[in-house]
Amino acid sequence: MNRRNFLKTAAIATTASTITAPAIAQPTPELRWRMALSWPKSLDTLFGACEQFAKRVAELTDNKFQIQLFAAGEIVPGLQVLDAVQNGTVEAGNTGGYYYWGKDPSFAFSTAVPFGLNTRQAEAWFYHGGGHELLNELYAQYNCYGIASGNTGAQMGGWFRKELHTVDDLKGIKMRIGGFAGKVISKLGVIPQQLAPGDIYPSLEKGTIDAAEWVGPYDDEKLGFVKVAKYYYSPGWWEGGANGVTLINLEKWQSLSKTYQAVVTSAAHEASLWLTSKYDHVNPPAIRRLVSAGAQIRVFSEEQLEAAYKAANETYAEISQTNPRFKKLLDSMTAFRNDSYQWWQVCEWPYDTFQIRMRGKA
Amino acid sequence: MNRRNFLKTAAIATTASTITAPAIAQPTPELRWRMALSWPKSLDTLFGACEQFAKRVAELTDNKFQIQLFAAGEIVPGLQVLDAVQNGTVEAGNTGGYYYWGKDPSFAFSTAVPFGLNTRQAEAWFYHGGGHELLNELYAQYNCYGIASGNTGAQMGGWFRKELHTVDDLKGIKMRIGGFAGKVISKLGVIPQQLAPGDIYPSLEKGTIDAAEWVGPYDDEKLGFVKVAKYYYSPGWWEGGANGVTLINLEKWQSLSKTYQAVVTSAAHEASLWLTSKYDHVNPPAIRRLVSAGAQIRVFSEEQLEAAYKAANETYAEISQTNPRFKKLLDSMTAFRNDSYQWWQVCEWPYDTFQIRMRGKA
Repeated sequence: MNRRNFLKTAAIATTASTITAPAIAQPTPELRWRMALSWPKSLDTLFGACEQFAKRVAELTDNKFQIQLFAAGEIVPGLQVLDAVQNGTVEAGNTGGYYYWGKDPSFAFSTAVPFGLNTRQAEAWFYHGGGHELLNELYAQYNCYGIASGNTGAQMGGWFRKELHTVDDLKGIKMRIGGFAGKVISKLGVIPQQLAPGDIYPSLEKGTIDAAEWVGPYDDEKLGFVKVAKYYYSPGWWEGGANGVTLINLEKWQSLSKTYQAVVTSAAHEASLWLTSKYDHVNPPAIRRLVSAGAQIRVFSEEQLEAAYKAANETYAEISQTNPRFKKLLDSMTAFRNDSYQWWQVCEWPYDTFQIRMRGKA
Repeated sequence: MNRRNFLKTAAIATTASTITAPAIAQPTPELRWRMALSWPKSLDTLFGACEQFAKRVAELTDNKFQIQLFAAGEIVPGLQVLDAVQNGTVEAGNTGGYYYWGKDPSFAFSTAVPFGLNTRQAEAWFYHGGGHELLNELYAQYNCYGIASGNTGAQMGGWFRKELHTVDDLKGIKMRIGGFAGKVISKLGVIPQQLAPGDIYPSLEKGTIDAAEWVGPYDDEKLGFVKVAKYYYSPGWWEGGANGVTLINLEKWQSLSKTYQAVVTSAAHEASLWLTSKYDHVNPPAIRRLVSAGAQIRVFSEEQLEAAYKAANETYAEISQTNPRFKKLLDSMTAFRNDSYQWWQVCEWPYDTFQIRMRGKA
């Protein structure tokens, strides 16, 4: 099947190409792919990283390999990108793996799980710690190949209409919260709501929901939440560092020349760096603007965080009983996290702690 | 000059190439470059990132663009990489910019300055915050183009033969410490020593020096310091996130096709991600091994850190009086750092803090 596909792609490429090398050996054929995204164009962070990716793929190939981007809903609904890539409706996509946790909760590890890895830890686990290989065993079941493609940094815990004082204050809160985290937070009495981005603000305004989490200051600011729910909670313990993933139809991936596989991989990795550093550049001024606009920053209490931690671990234990793939990913991620934070507290954390303290004195 | 160089390179390339496109328009000529590194082969972190870079450049170009690596001292002494690239002895290099702070202290911002940016902040400042452009004004004066190429993470503060209790305990300490940081730490009475890597261990063993900083657990372990100086101090406040830089002779850079400029840039950015995640993967087990081998981890006291912070700011003020380029870089970096930590303390820091606390409870 792969052999057949390779020949087909190469044959098409030769027709379009002006170079006379034999089709079978052609490393850089003319190629046009369609890439469906889970992101609206207004997210110049997540959508922007995909633009960087497609631009770089073109530049690296003297414009022979062109990837056309489609924002959420243009040709594929935002939360059906996996399905579209799996079925070959599009050659590639960029999405949050955890949107598909209903198919298999193992997909949550593609993006973020409650009390999981921070941004640098996630990159290290994907790149060197086995995460990439374990996740690709999962993606392959869905006829996809995946490359982690950028992290938002630790996300905020969302906008609440009322201040929270105790764990019990969470009970009965109707909250827009993404995917797998909803399963965990419901153990604390929160009633998770799935809403499209455009529906969140009016629901909060009307009081149909009491709280909503989205991403962080820069992305959240665009949706205007500060006007209708001023308590801005931190941290988003369900997304200590949330990753996008570039998904490629498995046969399309295998049909690529080694050169083009390198092009896609390099551009995707570069987009990772672009995305995290973009967030780290735009979030600081955004949080200042939000505070000026009336946002009241609150940190979840130790009691609330510990209750959530317990709820997360209970959820993990329950799923692990029947899902060996989930357990395998959980064990790998947890071991990595525990080792990593042991080191983090020795050097990174004291450095950041001192730097933060000196800002207070400045 | 650039036009002439471009034609020369293209002409050489055409001779070696089997493709018949006109030389002037050839985006992917055969090309062989030599790249001198400041790193010995034994540093599979820093040297390894350069191997990844060269391998990727070859893969992206169907092996047409080959970059041959030379470890420190093979053809260029480790601390003269800038000079070799500037003079065109080699087309490219990978080094720590701060090794050249004696030419201009502005070079320190290429790598790290005391109480400067952490790893993610450095990437964000380079990529989106103007750091890349400001540094390239400096590199251009030395006939180079530079791309930030990977960060070690926060480094450790080094190995001390005796425990330090007060600020005064630093007085008279003979310490191997790199470049610009030596200028700052000497204000606290430390006597900085410049030693090649191979000379550090014997000097510590004999007591010719009292302390030595190198990188962090994984790299330090190889040099065996734990056997002769067991107090391992944190954090290395002079390298809260230290960057390597890929330097390219400016004319060679300008002679590259747009395609090859994209290849070099993408591969260098990808190597950045590779390097930081490599360190984040190998340091956690290394710190455990070092503790098992007898390392006593200590954190510099608040008093010591504040004295160092004051010394750093005094040094910055002194240099800024006579060096406008240094002042421009300092102002840009400082503004970025202050904004960034204001946001960092809202979300990343509380997330990491809770995660570290839960490890203590596990």
